[in-house]
Amino acid sequence: MNSVRSTSWRKELKSHIREKSLVFLLADSNLPDSYSMDIMKVCKIKNKTHLLKIKGGEQIKTHQHLIKIYNELDVVGADRKSVLICLGGGTISDLGGFAASTYKRGIDLVILPTTVVGMVDAAIGGKNGINLESNVGILKNQIGTFHQPKLTGIDFKWLDSLPQDEIKSGWGEMLKHALLKGGSHLEQLKNAEPNIASLAPLIIESGNIKEGIVRRDVKENGERVLLNLGHTVGHAIESLELDASTESEIKHGIAVAWGIVFTLEVSVIKMGFNDAMAKELIKWIVDIIGYREKMWGSKEIWLKMCKDKKNINGNVKDVLLRNPGDVDWSFTWEREEFTILWEQFRKRYELTSC
Amino acid sequence: MNSVRSTSWRKELKSHIREKSLVFLLADSNLPDSYSMDIMKVCKIKNKTHLLKIKGGEQIKTHQHLIKIYNELDVVGADRKSVLICLGGGTISDLGGFAASTYKRGIDLVILPTTVVGMVDAAIGGKNGINLESNVGILKNQIGTFHQPKLTGIDFKWLDSLPQDEIKSGWGEMLKHALLKGGSHLEQLKNAEPNIASLAPLIIESGNIKEGIVRRDVKENGERVLLNLGHTVGHAIESLELDASTESEIKHGIAVAWGIVFTLEVSVIKMGFNDAMAKELIKWIVDIIGYREKMWGSKEIWLKMCKDKKNINGNVKDVLLRNPGDVDWSFTWEREEFTILWEQFRKRYELTSC
Repeated sequence: MNSVRSTSWRKELKSHIREKSLVFLLADSNLPDSYSMDIMKVCKIKNKTHLLKIKGGEQIKTHQHLIKIYNELDVVGADRKSVLICLGGGTISDLGGFAASTYKRGIDLVILPTTVVGMVDAAIGGKNGINLESNVGILKNQIGTFHQPKLTGIDFKWLDSLPQDEIKSGWGEMLKHALLKGGSHLEQLKNAEPNIASLAPLIIESGNIKEGIVRRDVKENGERVLLNLGHTVGHAIESLELDASTESEIKHGIAVAWGIVFTLEVSVIKMGFNDAMAKELIKWIVDIIGYREKMWGSKEIWLKMCKDKKNINGNVKDVLLRNPGDVDWSFTWEREEFTILWEQFRKRYELTSC
Repeated sequence: MNSVRSTSWRKELKSHIREKSLVFLLADSNLPDSYSMDIMKVCKIKNKTHLLKIKGGEQIKTHQHLIKIYNELDVVGADRKSVLICLGGGTISDLGGFAASTYKRGIDLVILPTTVVGMVDAAIGGKNGINLESNVGILKNQIGTFHQPKLTGIDFKWLDSLPQDEIKSGWGEMLKHALLKGGSHLEQLKNAEPNIASLAPLIIESGNIKEGIVRRDVKENGERVLLNLGHTVGHAIESLELDASTESEIKHGIAVAWGIVFTLEVSVIKMGFNDAMAKELIKWIVDIIGYREKMWGSKEIWLKMCKDKKNINGNVKDVLLRNPGDVDWSFTWEREEFTILWEQFRKRYELTSC
């Protein structure tokens, strides 16, 4: 993959941009100005620079925003030897990564993730994407490529400005990695609080778990599908919330955490996952993410699951667990069984049903 | 590159689509219906198929058309194991190739080129692209990727319906390959008439010249830039015509042929190309493409050349010839010199100036 992930981002960035014709910084306008100013200072020493600020969030992952970036790249004279730096969370790097991968058939990409999700997940593995507005609503990441960042720079101080729900969202992805890995890393996460001070020491290791899987399967032909744990249902919930409104938008990692709760329940039935252990894990998770005011119905969830781009020949595949660290990715859903299990699950965790 | 180019397209296509979940055929509506029906018949034996017809031409290389294809792929349930087949000229495969490369982060692509340009150039090498509407007009192929077709199927009978200006356009690209190669292939082309019967026997060899260069430099980091011969000026002319009107649109290969005429003149001055040989080649070329009613001015051409995506650090690079088959790609233009040489050239080949 030839991609560097480093906490010494200043040094690495300086070295990477040395030969570049222009540095184009795409920054989330939600962040303190000092973050982008700091990066601009590093780059301005030797390079022509340009800053574009966009307010991050799932709503920016559209062709309209993409075209805005293309035009801005063109106006400032970005060429093939220019580099696009994304400073922000997963939505900034998903949009910016796709722009970098398609502008003049591909320019270099650097990601400086400012969220926990970014650091442990979105900035690793080269996936980018925008959403497609279809006749069944918004389809997440339907359009995208694989384009590895040359550098992913980690700076924990960027997490200082992160809202609580974003921290929990990152915790959701860390939960996924911990269940994929099992062992002491899972124990450490169980002992950690969902706050930055407590999670920061586990972030690099969490990212390493994903990086290891991706490195062995760059184009998602096999093992990489493990990373879909909790995402089949998680993406469905996220898409439905996105279709319904932008205000009640659920955070990605929270949707994934709900997907994992459901996966644990199903894994007990289908994979013989230890019931007591599943209950203990579920209690831990739900204590952190809290019950849902309203959970979507099985029909809506199923329709979205059918549209998941990982499906082949219309089969809804899912990733289940035999144990923490022991994963099965051969499972295929039957609609009837899903409906029964989902409606039971829904009643348990929906406040209005309790 | 793992890409097959074959005149036994039925056999190869059948073998390639065997395991595919769906065949999506994107066909140029300018073509006789029998062409697409023929392909649908081959695919329908074993596969779910869908046909989308779009009227080919440079004007379709837009985000609007791209989104139309994405939506159609979604509506018919295309998944990652689906294959997109492009039946048409370069504009169909540029648009369809980009759609295939970005839909669900990439699905398989088959190209069945129905033009000479497609067979010898556009369908080889994996480049695709759409145009960007910018503040200085339309920029050709600014957005795209490298996505190798799994199969390029050649059938000379598809050329039967090709209009005369399209044949000449293909001849322009064959001219480029012949000058890059030199030797007996150039002599054969000089002896051929610009019609299908005469060109067909040279098409496979012409495509091989491009394929050899591309195979050695897939991502255009070096030698592949040779293929830009005649294109620096050629693309500029084409972009200007496209900005001005869609009716007087110049064909790609004709614009390239003009770029080559200019290149030959410059090569005599800058590279010591034999003057008598250049004159003979130019006479041959201009006899075929005919004088221009109106040639664009040096200022407009320069502005477009500066926007060429092959430029680095604002330098306008160009490909020149020392001899047929002996190419230099280190040349950088100075604006002043370009202006003088272009205005001289313009006077020579513009009917209104003659």
